[in-house]
Amino acid sequence: MAAHAQGVAVKAPAQPGALPPSDPALADSIVAPLPAIEAHLDAFLAQQPMPETLRAAVRYALLGGGKRLRPLLAWHACAALTGPTIAGTPALDSCGAVELVHAFSLVHDDLPAMDDDDVRRGRPTLHVHAGEAMAVLAGDAMLNLAFGILLSGRGSAPALAMLLARELTTGTAGMISGQVYDTLGGFASGLSEHQRVVMVHQNKTGALLRASCRMGALAGLDALGLLTPAGTPATGQAAAKLEAVTQYADAVGLMFQIVDDVLDITQTAEHAGKKTGKDLDAGKLTYPGVLGLDGSRAEIRRLEAQADKALDTLGPHGSALRQITAYLAVRTR
Amino acid sequence: MAAHAQGVAVKAPAQPGALPPSDPALADSIVAPLPAIEAHLDAFLAQQPMPETLRAAVRYALLGGGKRLRPLLAWHACAALTGPTIAGTPALDSCGAVELVHAFSLVHDDLPAMDDDDVRRGRPTLHVHAGEAMAVLAGDAMLNLAFGILLSGRGSAPALAMLLARELTTGTAGMISGQVYDTLGGFASGLSEHQRVVMVHQNKTGALLRASCRMGALAGLDALGLLTPAGTPATGQAAAKLEAVTQYADAVGLMFQIVDDVLDITQTAEHAGKKTGKDLDAGKLTYPGVLGLDGSRAEIRRLEAQADKALDTLGPHGSALRQITAYLAVRTR
Repeated sequence: MAAHAQGVAVKAPAQPGALPPSDPALADSIVAPLPAIEAHLDAFLAQQPMPETLRAAVRYALLGGGKRLRPLLAWHACAALTGPTIAGTPALDSCGAVELVHAFSLVHDDLPAMDDDDVRRGRPTLHVHAGEAMAVLAGDAMLNLAFGILLSGRGSAPALAMLLARELTTGTAGMISGQVYDTLGGFASGLSEHQRVVMVHQNKTGALLRASCRMGALAGLDALGLLTPAGTPATGQAAAKLEAVTQYADAVGLMFQIVDDVLDITQTAEHAGKKTGKDLDAGKLTYPGVLGLDGSRAEIRRLEAQADKALDTLGPHGSALRQITAYLAVRTR
Repeated sequence: MAAHAQGVAVKAPAQPGALPPSDPALADSIVAPLPAIEAHLDAFLAQQPMPETLRAAVRYALLGGGKRLRPLLAWHACAALTGPTIAGTPALDSCGAVELVHAFSLVHDDLPAMDDDDVRRGRPTLHVHAGEAMAVLAGDAMLNLAFGILLSGRGSAPALAMLLARELTTGTAGMISGQVYDTLGGFASGLSEHQRVVMVHQNKTGALLRASCRMGALAGLDALGLLTPAGTPATGQAAAKLEAVTQYADAVGLMFQIVDDVLDITQTAEHAGKKTGKDLDAGKLTYPGVLGLDGSRAEIRRLEAQADKALDTLGPHGSALRQITAYLAVRTR
């Protein structure tokens, strides 16, 4: 525990708010939807026609653990609109879709030509486990399945399915752009280091977290009958709530990645379940590199407050999203 | 020319129907939509936010030549319903989407971990040109952009966009499955060699050609007001025409890949603009390997007749699709 506590990224001992005595964890009420989400994904995957070897590879990458942050955000963004009792196939499809995109991106990012990582979620990466060709193809398949689950016509009306898939493609485009900026550069000229690191993080991580939250919120609005046939919020209050979820997502997305940067230089690989210290090794742009560790921690607190403030619009239904922010600010892996 | 004629895959000298004196070409009327399709794709690509390095990589892979078979099929499948004068954004979006998926698949298939090809369309492959990491990411981006162009909300009503994107995800899933069968195996047990090669080809090539044709036909039905809000054909005749296009596509898809197999063993790499003889080198399942060259050529003629027959339902509007079949049966690269 001492090693963990020492490594906790966010709050230095001198800061107010003492370290928790052990690793923080998400409350049971927050992770309660996970079994249903995983069963939904698993059932969808089982129904898709594909070679069993490919199915096994997708399953390995998809259902082998992980924080499931994106589906939890989608779920609780839906609940932030509807309250915890309404949830349906569009919300579950959204949860599955964002996890498929996240899992695909990890498989491709781990490839030898990319980050060349051998370990992910404490296990061999997919290309180590099943070969590089299968990892390329399984990643491709997962990206395609993410759209497939939204568009399968099982649960969502066409207009909602289209709206959710559009959010997904926007988020995925940002994620890929962020990966290019992070690993290959290609910035417009004249940007400061700080502007560049924000651009990397807003895209690489933020765009898909934003899509996760917005997809959940749209599914929630739809369940409440608050979307027009054209897919826009039907009332001013509905529009304000969608905007609040979006602002929340943008703050949390950036905060999440700054915490990641801090953990990369303060945690052991054994604790994180993946290689650490690699940003530094790779000479990547990071928040600690630009703002220092203390500056990064201050930025994390600022964004946490910003996310909390956005949730005010959502009233008591937003409490689960608030708990997620609090956890993400102090997570240690 | 002698070398080309000798290599022509389909009709051996002893067969009726003499070889054309030079390479066959698609009629001007068939390729006439290509500039509009390419301009549409180019304009879409220019509007998408992304690093310029990524945009250049996508452009290199996407707009660097190629037969453009899939967008031409989508276009003329639309025209087979509407006649040549009606075409709109949904048809152009469909053309762009299927070419994006095709181009993404070539980029990933060419990777060192996959087919390890250095030459494509007579130029260095993308990973040779821009590096392997960029090739992985640009391929991912193109698959995502294929959904993006359909879902952007610029031209298609939500229900049609959803329908087109659903066809695309089905076709892409088949294509990826086919690539797995072709390069990594994973067949169910008890299949004959013939059954396995059909399974490879129907998926690897056929699924996306089917999606191309069906997307075009759906755009055509929609332009004519012949789709219900649920996305089904509104009349029996409309349903019959969609089915005819589907049957056409299935025959042409299989035929196309058998011709490819034959060309792979009868053509020089210089003529084909890509490495040839590689199926044999890789010990892949091919039609000539299973049925012999003569058997493969007979199968090509059988499928050509089957495609033509399916088109009977479409009347004179189907003539462009008929010309495409005739060209595909005798192409030499």
